[in-house]
Amino acid sequence: MDRTGQIAVIFVSQRTDADAAGYAAAAEAMDRLAAAQPGYRGVDAARGTNGLGITVSWWADEAAAIAWREHPAHAAIRAEGRARWYDRCEIAVAAVTRSYEWERP
Amino acid sequence: MDRTGQIAVIFVSQRTDADAAGYAAAAEAMDRLAAAQPGYRGVDAARGTNGLGITVSWWADEAAAIAWREHPAHAAIRAEGRARWYDRCEIAVAAVTRSYEWERP
Repeated sequence: MDRTGQIAVIFVSQRTDADAAGYAAAAEAMDRLAAAQPGYRGVDAARGTNGLGITVSWWADEAAAIAWREHPAHAAIRAEGRARWYDRCEIAVAAVTRSYEWERP
Repeated sequence: MDRTGQIAVIFVSQRTDADAAGYAAAAEAMDRLAAAQPGYRGVDAARGTNGLGITVSWWADEAAAIAWREHPAHAAIRAEGRARWYDRCEIAVAAVTRSYEWERP
């Protein structure tokens, strides 16, 4: 998919060891909710065995990314994240200027 | 770290099952080489047990990101990646408009 012009929200986080089940349920609920928002263009996520994870959510434009940030359920879950699930996190919002993809033929 | 103004190179990749040792050695060598380039501002990487990985490398500006793309050793290793290590990959280059960070107090 050509992502030129999209907004990438890059979320880098270090999980605590706490509450694996609660975290998994919340992550799945947020994925579902994000996917239902206007301007949603997908998500990529990976977390290693050391607990460091990266999630990139892709949005049609800035307004869509901001609307997702401001969604009440999303804002509420961030408080849970800071209380229990994360030791640290970093977010960067970035405008895609070019993209490429390759798949094994 | 405030990443506003930096360039994020987002690399999403699906590993094959092949050549774990060769891949690990090459990844470490590329990390070291990238860190020695002008304008390098860090890297975040995670790969899950399903083989899907995300690497975000951060650069001072477009020129630095492009110079790294064109580095001969980096270009050579990409051919190896397509031949052996990846089933698919996607790259997006994006200009950071704002960033936030949080750490457990």
